This record gives sequence, structure tokens and C-alpha cells, in this order.
Amino acid sequence: MVSHPHNNEHIDDEMIKMEVNLDDMPGEWLGYVMDLLFEAGANDVFYTPIYMKKNRPGVLLQLLSSRSRIHKMKEILFKETTTLGVRYYPLTVHRLERKFKSVETMWGPVTVKEGYFEGKLTQRAPEYEDCKEIAKLHNIPIKQVYEQVWVKSELV
Amino acid sequence: MVSHPHNNEHIDDEMIKMEVNLDDMPGEWLGYVMDLLFEAGANDVFYTPIYMKKNRPGVLLQLLSSRSRIHKMKEILFKETTTLGVRYYPLTVHRLERKFKSVETMWGPVTVKEGYFEGKLTQRAPEYEDCKEIAKLHNIPIKQVYEQVWVKSELV
Amino acid sequence: MVSHPHNNEHIDDEMIKMEVNLDDMPGEWLGYVMDLLFEAGANDVFYTPIYMKKNRPGVLLQLLSSRSRIHKMKEILFKETTTLGVRYYPLTVHRLERKFKSVETMWGPVTVKEGYFEGKLTQRAPEYEDCKEIAKLHNIPIKQVYEQVWVKSELV
Amino acid sequence: MVSHPHNNEHIDDEMIKMEVNLDDMPGEWLGYVMDLLFEAGANDVFYTPIYMKKNRPGVLLQLLSSRSRIHKMKEILFKETTTLGVRYYPLTVHRLERKFKSVETMWGPVTVKEGYFEGKLTQRAPEYEDCKEIAKLHNIPIKQVYEQVWVKSELV
Amino acid sequence: MVSHPHNNEHIDDEMIKMEVNLDDMPGEWLGYVMDLLFEAGANDVFYTPIYMKKNRPGVLLQLLSSRSRIHKMKEILFKETTTLGVRYYPLTVHRLERKFKSVETMWGPVTVKEGYFEGKLTQRAPEYEDCKEIAKLHNIPIKQVYEQVWVKSELV
Amino acid sequence: MVSHPHNNEHIDDEMIKMEVNLDDMPGEWLGYVMDLLFEAGANDVFYTPIYMKKNRPGVLLQLLSSRSRIHKMKEILFKETTTLGVRYYPLTVHRLERKFKSVETMWGPVTVKEGYFEGKLTQRAPEYEDCKEIAKLHNIPIKQVYEQVWVKSELV
Repeated sequence: MVSHPHNNEHIDDEMIKMEVNLDDMPGEWLGYVMDLLFEAGANDVFYTPIYMKKNRPGVLLQLLSSRSRIHKMKEILFKETTTLGVRYYPLTVHRLERKFKSVETMWGPVTVKEGYFEGKLTQRAPEYEDCKEIAKLHNIPIKQVYEQVWVKSELV
Repeated sequence: MVSHPHNNEHIDDEMIKMEVNLDDMPGEWLGYVMDLLFEAGANDVFYTPIYMKKNRPGVLLQLLSSRSRIHKMKEILFKETTTLGVRYYPLTVHRLERKFKSVETMWGPVTVKEGYFEGKLTQRAPEYEDCKEIAKLHNIPIKQVYEQVWVKSELV
Repeated sequence: MVSHPHNNEHIDDEMIKMEVNLDDMPGEWLGYVMDLLFEAGANDVFYTPIYMKKNRPGVLLQLLSSRSRIHKMKEILFKETTTLGVRYYPLTVHRLERKFKSVETMWGPVTVKEGYFEGKLTQRAPEYEDCKEIAKLHNIPIKQVYEQVWVKSELV
Repeated sequence: MVSHPHNNEHIDDEMIKMEVNLDDMPGEWLGYVMDLLFEAGANDVFYTPIYMKKNRPGVLLQLLSSRSRIHKMKEILFKETTTLGVRYYPLTVHRLERKFKSVETMWGPVTVKEGYFEGKLTQRAPEYEDCKEIAKLHNIPIKQVYEQVWVKSELV
Repeated sequence: MVSHPHNNEHIDDEMIKMEVNLDDMPGEWLGYVMDLLFEAGANDVFYTPIYMKKNRPGVLLQLLSSRSRIHKMKEILFKETTTLGVRYYPLTVHRLERKFKSVETMWGPVTVKEGYFEGKLTQRAPEYEDCKEIAKLHNIPIKQVYEQVWVKSELV
Repeated sequence: MVSHPHNNEHIDDEMIKMEVNLDDMPGEWLGYVMDLLFEAGANDVFYTPIYMKKNRPGVLLQLLSSRSRIHKMKEILFKETTTLGVRYYPLTVHRLERKFKSVETMWGPVTVKEGYFEGKLTQRAPEYEDCKEIAKLHNIPIKQVYEQVWVKSELV
């Protein structure tokens, strides 16, 4: 088990949520925009279906970012989407302490991300990319990989 | 109260549902397409948000139509949307007997649409356009108009 | 009619909205989590479907709570969901004056919750649980119960 | 392990899907309608948000039922919702063989529902109500109960 | 090309987002409420489907407005919806410089709205109402009108 | 311009839609399942958010496939999801004639997929992957690539 010193439980007051409403661009471009925002350091990006004026199905793009990246995020949104305005507001984020553990399965090791709330283990999540790789390689259902990781991590 | 002879309770086996998935056109055009489909005789048109491949928020357009209008509906979908294919399948529709009644409110008459299931009144709906017009004209909340129609139609 | 002294119209500056994005837990658990949050004093809890990275349908959990319950809400979210972080921000809430009135229907009394904006009655809502109980007991459509409550409360 | 003779893998050609679009009734009534439909024997009932004409957020109610219950389902929909028409179409359903197994946890037994596809175990799901009851009684996170059931059922 | 002096790029710190959750009013009224809010000066109004307690499909109404219109917005929400409370919080909005340009198509002129980020053109959107009018008048697909505007505006 | 002989306009009566409701598996696995279904020959796969019993946000998985692949699709769904049953029904699909054209932009060639309805060009869509590659390589907004393709394909 490796402890990451930067991964201590903490309250972050330097985060913002940024939002744009989109009803005049194809959904096709939005998958691409999501990738660009993540690459530029967004902590999360997600879409919500919304109902806009004149019977238009639209999309609400929301992203979480540190204040220090506000300009970078705006730049991508203005260049890559069709919006003429972006809005944002400050957030407080409480993050758990994170530790990364390696669990041995019959197909090889899988990383498990653990979360600690006030020093107590409350979360344990197998890394999706590890499980996916094993599932593809061994041609087994991904749920079977997760199940084995849960069992093995319980017994460690 | 006026009885409409064509509005008897019946089972209709000549209906279809038609569908297209859209991820490469702006939502802006979809409000317009909905109008065109209704004008061309669609019985209903509605949109559902869907998640498509490559992280694309998309829209599922569904419409209900009689078989006799299949070609007309396809024509609009192919000309006005970006789809390269439309799909459809037959439906059975059970429609209630409908009667239209006029209810007198303090602001004038409102039409109420009634539905009868096996000869028994089960639905009573004030006509939205009538209520909206009164609300606008008298500058009162639309819910107040509906409320009065419910009260008055109960007492008739 | 009973007036509740604590139910005066007011502006509340001590509220927050708390949010988490969830893409790695089954929907099955979320009905349970909603109950726990309400029991612990959340003013409201609701879910929105969101589109997350890697083509994942996810859920945005949002809750409204007083500042004084922030720790309690976090504790439930960290223990019962799979999240490693929660975010929150302050809100202002304007609440109407509330009064509770009893309306006599042919099946017995139903409570009606009234809302007053600047001293004027603007809302009147039959209590759902009362109407549901009558509908079940007398085996009548719930909409019929609501309709009668609207009629009777209008005439009081 | 108890084998249920009626739970063999089979193809069922006697099912239908029934649908109604709703834009003129409160969401409040829809939770109640869902319960009534399940009680009357619907195999499943679910709601999808839809965008309807005139900028109306609506709800698509869908239910799965055997053909033999078509009349019962219609009756509930016509009496309890505001619709003037319901539509339906036939479906084929392929159901897995089901077995029910009891798994011993440190808090007592939990039923696990298993699914077999062509004789091979492919699904294993702890019963939600059992897990919920244990979580409430012992005041532990529901995810912890599920985790233990997965571990224990793996080892049986 | 006409430059609008009031349309310079700017950061607006005087905006708020206002929200209400609705589960006890028909979707039918919500199209009407959206119109009223826009007429009263809301910068945007949109609906999101939400899942509320007791299995209720609900709607989250969100609107963007200047602080100076807070009272007007509340008044409409309290009078026209069934809510007993509204919530709001401040937002920062970054708006691009806007210019309006006229583009000549084979069917007549169409206005194109341009957006400039830090002095550089990043957005170019044909006005929907102009395109719609041409499409209706000439009985051609709206997408064909948009396409021609894109081509012509590129070449200007 | 290359004409693909297999891409003629046609009506296909050998298609089905297959559906499962999912409320007991994490969204995380669903991105993976979508990929597997496409790799196994599904014509389309998409997710819709649904509201299921007991306040559970769920997902409706829908896929389109030829009848000949029904068994393959079921196998993936039973192995990779948590469902105990899948349902399906026949569909008619009307597909346009497709042609693929190469359009020269200032950054190199892009394929444009054309659709013909009764011999008349009605659709013209730049290939997303081509545009994305150019956008990444030249570090320009993807919408700018699409715009140039529209302009150039108009002029060919």
C-alpha cells in the first residue's frame, strides 16, 4: 500500500463551477469538447439535458475547475462551442484522503482507490481502466473482474 | 354540451411509431421540425434525451402517425433533419370517447374536453389555449383559471 | 384554520446546496440514500441524469440543507455513496408564509397547505398523503380526491 | 440452494409494452400510479422525461405486462392519469433461469438471486430489501452489506 | 456591418441564478410560465428533468436574471407555479462582444450574430427567426438556409 | 466521388430493437458495454435515463440490430450487465442511398457522407473522425473545420 502525501483529506475553497447552455451546436462536437476540457485540467465535466425556449432540446455543460484555470476554461468554451457567454460561481469542495492499493487477482494486479473520511476507510473502488484491460485481454465480463477485486481486497 | 360523432371510443390498429436518433444537428432546428410534423398530421411528436457513442448527448425524436402518412413523415425527417435512416413499427391505440363541454367562468366560457372509458366519464381537461387567453387578457395566474374551471365544471 | 407562528414569510441566508456526481454505484442504492438524507434533516434531495466521461450515464445528487447540518450530510454521502468528494455553495431561500387548513370532503377531512406571498394567498395544495389514503380506502382515483378538495376549498 | 421449477429460462411471446405521454398532470400523482400498476401485476413500470409541444416538460409512462392484463392496465391508466389514449405493441422477452440462494453474513442471512443463461451462471444479485433491512437495523452503510454478500457468495 | 456600442465584451457581477423544484403542477403550465419569465426580462429560462421523493418525476426550473429583477421573478414564480419557496445565488457572467452582420442569400438577407473573444471572432450564428421565415416562405429545409448563410458569410 | 453499390436506398424489414432496464449496476460499466455491442455488430446503441420503482434512477439500454445477431446481442447483455431478462421487437428501417465524397480543405481532405432520398441529395455530413484529427493536428476549433467543409462542399 502506497500513501500519497498530497492526497490528504482537505477542504478546498478555490474551486468554481462553470456553466453554458447550448442549443445551437450538434451533440457530435460535445464529446470532443469534453476531452479538451479534461486535458486542460478540468476536475470534472458533465452534460445535463435541458428544455430551452422555442421547443429546443438543449444541453447544459457544467465543469468543475480551480480558480487558477478560469481563463483557460473560458478560452476553450468560447472557441469550441457556440456560446456567447459563460457563467461561473465559487464552490467549496471537501475531498477525502486517498490511498492507492494493489490487489492481486487471478489475472494479475488491479489498483484500488481508497477514500478515508476523518481517518476511517469509507470508499474502495477498483480502477476502471485496470479492470477493463483485464476483461478485454482475458475475454471475461468486466463485472467478474470487479467482483474478484472486491473479494480479494476484503481479505487483504 | 356537444357530442362529436367521430369521437367515439375505439381501438385503432392503423397507427405507427416512427423514430430517429440525432446527434449531429443543433437543438435549435428541432423546435421547427416539431411544428412541421404536427402540421403534416402527426398525432404526437416528442423528444427524449439520449446518450450516444463517443460521449455525445443526442436526441431521440419519436412521432405517432397513421400508416397513411408514413411517406409524408419520412419526407420531412429526411429533408429537415440530418438522419440517414428512419425506423418505425406498428402500434395499437385505444382512444376514449371525447365530448366537448363549455364551462362558464367569471371571465367567460372555457371549453372542457371530456374522456369516457366504457361509457363512464374518467377525464375532464380545460382547454389550455382558452385558459391561457383568459390569463393573459385579465392578467391573472393561469392556475387560477384552471381552478375555477374545475370548480364550475364540478357543479354543472 | 390554524396559523403556525414559525411559518411566517421570510428570507433564509443560512442554506446551502450540496452536490455529488455518481457514476460508479447502482441506482438501487440511491433510493435508500435519499431516505437517509431526508431523515437526517435535508430540506430537499433530488437526482438529475447526467452524461459523464467515457460514455457513462451518471447521476447528479443535489440536496438543500441548512448550514448547521453540513457535517451530517457529508457523513451520509461519504458513508453511503461511492464519492471521494462533495461540493457545496451558499443559497438564499425565500419562503412563503404557510397556513394549514382542513377541508371537508365527502370522504372526510383533507389538510390543505396554503402559501401567502406578501400577505396574499397564492398557493393552495391538498396534502398528498391525505388524498392518497382516501383514494386507497375508498378505491377511487386520486385525481377525483384532489378535484373535490379544490372545489370544497374554493367554496369555504 | 432452492430451485424454483417455474423459473426456467424461457422465451415469452405473450408480453406487451404499453405507453402514455403525460403533460397535464402533476408528478406527485405519478408515484402513486406506479404503485397501482405494480399491484395490478405489471412486470415493470418506468418514467422517461420527454419534451412535448408548446415547451412542455412531459413524462412518458411505459409499462411491461402480459397480454392477459391489457384491460386491467388500461383501466388504471384511464382512471388515474389524464390521458385520452393509450398505445401498446407486442414484445418478445427472453428470461434467464432464476435460482434463489441464501448467503450467511455476519449480520444474518441475505437472499441472492442468481440468473443462468444457457445453464451457466451469469448474474448474482443480493436482494435489496434484505440488505436494506440489515443496514437499517445495524446502522451500517448499505454498500458494506452488499460487499459482504459478494464476498461470501463467492466463497460458498 | 453594424457595431452595437452596448455589446462590448464584459464581465457582469450583477447576475443571479434562481431555482425552484416542481412536482405538483402539470407540465402544460410550464410552457406558459417560461414565456412570462422571458417577457419580464429573464436572460434565460430552462427546465431539467429531476427525480424527486416518493417516485415523482419533477422539473427543476432555472432562470438567469440581473439582481435588479429578483423581485419581479419571484412574483411570477409564486403566482404562476405551485412552489412555496424559491432559492437563488450570485453568478459571474462573461459575455463576448457582439456584432450583427447582414448576409445576402439567394432568398434575401439574413442577420448573423458574431461573438468576439478578446477581439477575435470566435462565434458566428445565423439568426434562427430569419432562417425560419425564409424556410417557410420558400418551402425549403431550414438546414439548407443555414448552410447557405455559412457559405456566404465565409466569403464576405 | 465513389458510389458504394451496397449503399442503395432501401427498406429493411429484418431489424429489431432490443431493450433492458438497469438499476443495479454502476454507470461506469455501461460505457464499456456500449463498445462491446458496437464491436459485435449493433447498428446503434444508446442510453436513456429512466425513473424506476423505489426512487431509483435507472438506465434504459436500447440497441438496434439485424435479426441475425439477436443471439450475439443477448449473450453480451446477459454476461456484461446485471439483467435477468431482455426484450425485443421487430422494426422496419428505411435507409437512404449513401455516397462518400472527398472535400479538399486548406488542411487536407475530409470525407463527406451524402444521403439521397428518392434520388435527391438531402444530407451532407462531414466525417467526425476526419474533422477531429485535423482540429487536433492543427490546433484549431473543430467547428472551424466543419464550417470550411460545408463551404467547400457547396462549391464543388
